Amino acid sequence: MARIVQKFGGSSLKNPKFIDNAASIICQEANSGNEVVAVVSAMGKTTDELLNLASSLNDNPNLRELDMLLASGEQVSSALMSIAIQKRGLQARAFTGIQAKILTDTNHGEASIKEIETDSIEASLSRGEIAVVAGFQGSFAQNEITTLGRGGSDTTAVALAYAIDAERCDIYTDVAGVYTGDPHLIENSKMIKAISYDEMYEMAISGAKVLNANSVELAKKYEVPVRVRSTFEPDNIGTLVTHKIFTPTRHLTSLSLDLSQSLVSLKMVHNTENLDFVSSLFTRLAELKISIDMFMMIAPEDNLNFELVFAIANKEIAKLNQIINEDNIKQKFKSVEIKEKLAKISLIGSQLNLRSDVIAQLFELVKANKTKLHLVATSDLRVSILVDREKSKSLINLIHNNFFNI
Amino acid sequence: MARIVQKFGGSSLKNPKFIDNAASIICQEANSGNEVVAVVSAMGKTTDELLNLASSLNDNPNLRELDMLLASGEQVSSALMSIAIQKRGLQARAFTGIQAKILTDTNHGEASIKEIETDSIEASLSRGEIAVVAGFQGSFAQNEITTLGRGGSDTTAVALAYAIDAERCDIYTDVAGVYTGDPHLIENSKMIKAISYDEMYEMAISGAKVLNANSVELAKKYEVPVRVRSTFEPDNIGTLVTHKIFTPTRHLTSLSLDLSQSLVSLKMVHNTENLDFVSSLFTRLAELKISIDMFMMIAPEDNLNFELVFAIANKEIAKLNQIINEDNIKQKFKSVEIKEKLAKISLIGSQLNLRSDVIAQLFELVKANKTKLHLVATSDLRVSILVDREKSKSLINLIHNNFFNI
Repeated sequence: MARIVQKFGGSSLKNPKFIDNAASIICQEANSGNEVVAVVSAMGKTTDELLNLASSLNDNPNLRELDMLLASGEQVSSALMSIAIQKRGLQARAFTGIQAKILTDTNHGEASIKEIETDSIEASLSRGEIAVVAGFQGSFAQNEITTLGRGGSDTTAVALAYAIDAERCDIYTDVAGVYTGDPHLIENSKMIKAISYDEMYEMAISGAKVLNANSVELAKKYEVPVRVRSTFEPDNIGTLVTHKIFTPTRHLTSLSLDLSQSLVSLKMVHNTENLDFVSSLFTRLAELKISIDMFMMIAPEDNLNFELVFAIANKEIAKLNQIINEDNIKQKFKSVEIKEKLAKISLIGSQLNLRSDVIAQLFELVKANKTKLHLVATSDLRVSILVDREKSKSLINLIHNNFFNI
Repeated sequence: MARIVQKFGGSSLKNPKFIDNAASIICQEANSGNEVVAVVSAMGKTTDELLNLASSLNDNPNLRELDMLLASGEQVSSALMSIAIQKRGLQARAFTGIQAKILTDTNHGEASIKEIETDSIEASLSRGEIAVVAGFQGSFAQNEITTLGRGGSDTTAVALAYAIDAERCDIYTDVAGVYTGDPHLIENSKMIKAISYDEMYEMAISGAKVLNANSVELAKKYEVPVRVRSTFEPDNIGTLVTHKIFTPTRHLTSLSLDLSQSLVSLKMVHNTENLDFVSSLFTRLAELKISIDMFMMIAPEDNLNFELVFAIANKEIAKLNQIINEDNIKQKFKSVEIKEKLAKISLIGSQLNLRSDVIAQLFELVKANKTKLHLVATSDLRVSILVDREKSKSLINLIHNNFFNI
């Protein structure tokens, strides 16, 4: 007998038929003799619909009440999933975040899990029940409800898998596993059998939606073996995310595309005071939880000006402008330029810093596809390029054919 | 400064525009210097939609999970209402049943409130916040979620009004108050300025949907003054439900119509053993929470047979048949007859037992309207007749014109 955590995302729970399909997967695992904890997201687009309701009433809703609102979505799923499992003749018990004792900090909207008191779930498992836990949510103090931020159900699943010492955490989604490129975009993309936590993390922060980046970090930290697999092909074992993979030290793993990126360029006079100021700018970015990527600082030879450039998700532009217009920041810039409607293509692999051949080929492909290139950044695990959005889909197919269809 | 509880039903919270309208009523009360606790139902038809989801997965869903499912509806409303109030510049705090510490028994689906620990709500009010409580729900033990049964938000409101010693409990709905007859059906119906708890109770159990019967009982017990009033005419003070009304001792108050009634007739041999059996039949009815009305037992002169007749809501027929087919009950009957598609018309007033003139006129009106009459039952506060459904709407108008448009 093993313990398995199974997580089902919104696209696997769109309607009662989908919920029942997921219930059949859970029951199959339980009937094979395993103890099962299921973690469920809100049904389909529920979270977006609830957010729309809130913003139609208030463009700046209180985060405490927003958490209470959004947490209802997963509560509904956990109740319905338990009801579907019970119909199939097995015992099930639904848990809200409060009931599952998922204790978080007080950071409404993007809370971090501090601890999981597992006694209620352990008691449920020992009664022979399938524990069905509402993902994405926790609580602090006197039953104050928090949510873990987008993709938070993945984090719930990984954290629970660690807390109850599960053998495996299966993340069920609408694709069969992790691919060399988005199978919706790239015809010849291939499923990857195993991928390292680090590479999976790079993919997640480069726009691959298959797994949430925080959950990958957590899985790495606690060495929780994660499987990404499909609700619609339960017999396909999908992609294993783990430390223990056997690949050449230098290799390319996958390609990802993020269609909602902007390039920010800030020019300023180069002096010591301004270097302090860059630090305070980054402090503000962190305070408002804005992530940037591909950050570079260019100090020209003349030393008179310097330029900060970075990529940022389009949805963060409003918050960025807010920071730029703050009194102590506004006057520092000689110029602020924001180019929207860009796409970021990222090639994930290992030891990419040593692969100038990869960079060289990328430049050739960009040129062959007549695509305007705005920025290139490389690290050990990833090469990312920022290009015009309109030609990015043809470009990513070209790149995939070049590197993955040899 | 007074304390007011305001309750908003689903029809007052259909969409964001309606929620915002209700928020304006709450803010007006708070801005006039009063402390306000708002109790909210689920938006529009949410509860029915959630029930449909559950029954599409399982025709006999577990009541614990069903409560967790349904409670989400009021959680959503309380969060959204708080967000709408905050937009209007006032402080608000949403409470689930767990957070409001509404403690119930363990009877999932139809729990009774045992106690309300008011410290969280008192703390919220003393911070100058409007407390927005999810109606219809409570909890027991380790945050196990319960619901109070249909119309339970009225009960939450009345119980809270008593617990925090509120001056008044305002029940906001889609009609301006309590009428002499359903204004959707009867053109000339008149709003009633004040009505006694007892009469309101009789109306509630006779099919008037304006207020839940349990909440009226509770209001009477704790002497909570209740106002039934309209969300769409906030300046209309509506109908007061109270002990203290000044009316003639003999009077008629209102008329109600219930279109989903059946008449049950059970015939059996008359002997002592069977009398015991009637008692066990009623025990089973109580166990399955089936209410019956207009119960009568007819023992003919010959003493060989007797007949039990009563009215029952159509939706209870399946459960009734279940009881009738139980082994120890089935063989007792000589015949079982159930007439469906009947309507119950009830005339509410006081000292009606002494008003044979009312009974006489009723018979004349039934005859004039050529309607088949199946059963008549009278009590001090109510005369009810069971008639064919098809002619009941014309009949109720005829009755209303006769008694209320003099």
